[in-house]
Amino acid sequence: MSLLVTNIGELVTNSDRRLGLARDMAVVTENDRIAWVGPAHRAPAADDILDVDGAAVLPGFVDSHTHLVFAGDRAAEFAARMAGEPYTGGGIRTTVGATRAAPDSVLRDNTTRLVTEMRRQGTTTIEIKSGYGLNVDDEVRSLRIAAELTSETTFLGAHVVPAEHAGDPWKYVGQVVGPMLAAARPYAKWIDVFCERGAFDEDQARTVLAAGQAAGLGLRVHGNQLGPGPGVRLAVEMGAASVDHCTHLDDADVDALASTAIDCMCADGGHSTTVATLLPGAEFSTRSPYPDARRLLDAGVTVALATDCNPGSSYTSSMPFCIALAVREMRMTPAEAVWAATAGGAHALRRDDVGRITVGARADLIVLDAPSHLHLAYRPGVPLIRSVLHNGVPQ
Amino acid sequence: MSLLVTNIGELVTNSDRRLGLARDMAVVTENDRIAWVGPAHRAPAADDILDVDGAAVLPGFVDSHTHLVFAGDRAAEFAARMAGEPYTGGGIRTTVGATRAAPDSVLRDNTTRLVTEMRRQGTTTIEIKSGYGLNVDDEVRSLRIAAELTSETTFLGAHVVPAEHAGDPWKYVGQVVGPMLAAARPYAKWIDVFCERGAFDEDQARTVLAAGQAAGLGLRVHGNQLGPGPGVRLAVEMGAASVDHCTHLDDADVDALASTAIDCMCADGGHSTTVATLLPGAEFSTRSPYPDARRLLDAGVTVALATDCNPGSSYTSSMPFCIALAVREMRMTPAEAVWAATAGGAHALRRDDVGRITVGARADLIVLDAPSHLHLAYRPGVPLIRSVLHNGVPQ
Ligand SMILES: [Zn+2]
Ligand SMILES: [Zn+2]
Repeated sequence: MSLLVTNIGELVTNSDRRLGLARDMAVVTENDRIAWVGPAHRAPAADDILDVDGAAVLPGFVDSHTHLVFAGDRAAEFAARMAGEPYTGGGIRTTVGATRAAPDSVLRDNTTRLVTEMRRQGTTTIEIKSGYGLNVDDEVRSLRIAAELTSETTFLGAHVVPAEHAGDPWKYVGQVVGPMLAAARPYAKWIDVFCERGAFDEDQARTVLAAGQAAGLGLRVHGNQLGPGPGVRLAVEMGAASVDHCTHLDDADVDALASTAIDCMCADGGHSTTVATLLPGAEFSTRSPYPDARRLLDAGVTVALATDCNPGSSYTSSMPFCIALAVREMRMTPAEAVWAATAGGAHALRRDDVGRITVGARADLIVLDAPSHLHLAYRPGVPLIRSVLHNGVPQ
Repeated sequence: MSLLVTNIGELVTNSDRRLGLARDMAVVTENDRIAWVGPAHRAPAADDILDVDGAAVLPGFVDSHTHLVFAGDRAAEFAARMAGEPYTGGGIRTTVGATRAAPDSVLRDNTTRLVTEMRRQGTTTIEIKSGYGLNVDDEVRSLRIAAELTSETTFLGAHVVPAEHAGDPWKYVGQVVGPMLAAARPYAKWIDVFCERGAFDEDQARTVLAAGQAAGLGLRVHGNQLGPGPGVRLAVEMGAASVDHCTHLDDADVDALASTAIDCMCADGGHSTTVATLLPGAEFSTRSPYPDARRLLDAGVTVALATDCNPGSSYTSSMPFCIALAVREMRMTPAEAVWAATAGGAHALRRDDVGRITVGARADLIVLDAPSHLHLAYRPGVPLIRSVLHNGVPQ
């Protein structure tokens, strides 16, 4: 089954860092893959035709950082925080309680609802973390549900120390790297740790990452969100695919990230970049200062954008919203922001088959209700995703 | 034809300043009006039923400030501004050129597209200004097209002085209050003037407003956007329904606005409030400081939120986005922001039949994909409008 997408006013291929922009283009998909890309007037025939009438076409967004498996919400906590009221809620532990208490069907329905919401907004690759179970059974069922919906599953047993282990974090780390990791392993591709004051310190984080690596998982790190810390340097040292948040960095952190950067997507067949994944939805929803994206980009660091979708600190599922914030608040150009939300996310997941529109890549395409990728930042908040192809299938 | 909307988890009626919130409610519409509001278990029968399954229901948004009649876009100018490049575009005059050059069909299609986009995002009352014609023929056809789509039409011949009158602004004011106003009058409900350094000074603005008032039009003012100025005091002095932007205010401005405020919607059958209409989409898209909404609210000023949708300084059509910005950036509570985007907009248009869900009001309702109005700020960027009734008709 082949499909000709034609009359593309502006095509974002991501074949280079400036989006590989081209005009008056067409794309042919063959089943779940891209089979041909070129000028519209030279397009080959196909079984079906989608005429997009001058619209912009982009690779589907790659959201490399979400926490979608949970129950309940924290709208009242959000409203209190915005009103400047002292924080009295239980934070992540509130969601842990609600998640543990929820039957599988509630968790599955909620996660599926959010995945569907993301697909409608153009996100075709979604990483999903556990981290609201924090015991063997609830971490495993969280990952099982995540694995039903994506191949990019991340074991985040080391999200926070749960209340029942509050007095002895190392004992909890022992649980994470022992029975929890063993049980989670069949459902997880990645392991992640929240390396931050109040969560896990450098030694604890290294222990978690080393155990995950030994079990064959790829590495991801939450680091340097709330203050300076060892997260970024640890991520680079251990060869993590991404370190996420990166709000409070010193020169050594930036240098370390830059030293791992590669210019093009796995031209040599292997990945060694540690991507800096920025999550401006979290700064928006916690009224915090934004990361300095310009400093990272100007240093040559590979930057990704992701939503951090979670019920506490960033309950947006919208990559277009994150792109608009990246331009307004982090002084990324629209092209840099779009690249970071597509190719950048693919780098952060060490994927070569998504985040680009090139022959052989997955047929994950967004058709915008707009003539240019610029409109994603120029028209903030507007639902501009006209249609989405995921694995070649209209959504 | 009657419709029972039931199983409403949270109903925003705007029967008081705290949204008149109630739980487990139902609403019955009869043709284009609301016929009954009360607890779901006491709801009367109706011809049809819409079970919203616990969702929040709000009055349709009232967007009291838009510039929807234009041709072309200014995406490149936006991208250059965001990159900090010096402003070399022609600004409003770029759009004036494109608008004058466009055939009616292009203007009509573009305006209709934007109105449709707004309706899908829950906006059921839309004010539309002219202001990109700036001569008799092009102002009149702009208003004629606007009047096909809304009853809230505003003659904004005094948007800027067009290039051909650059040397003699008073001569242009003479055009505005003379032949342009006479020709625009049949299509316009309101008159507006951009009272700002670089546009029209206090005397010019007063001349425009007085002529509009004499012609039977209601008054609106663009004021105090780019710096301190006489706009707010002039609006209050002349009894304008609204003064819009209000970014740079002194104590006298705030006092003047507060002195006009009334507590409830036209309980006495008449309106005398000058509403402060805040347009945070403009500050977002021009990277400018936001108005101090808290100062206005704490002084008792009646505040509305609107999009300012236009191709130059705020090309968002999304009231949910403006609500999220109002909470994040202007420290409005979610309830204040939702009130301002519904009842506040109705005050700014001196309307009693929209912006509220009470018996006799228009059957303009939004069903959210969420259990509470809080989610409009808590879930920024997410398309949360599940369905919209406009004049009782599903959109
Ligand atoms: Zn996270
Ligand atoms: Zn305006």
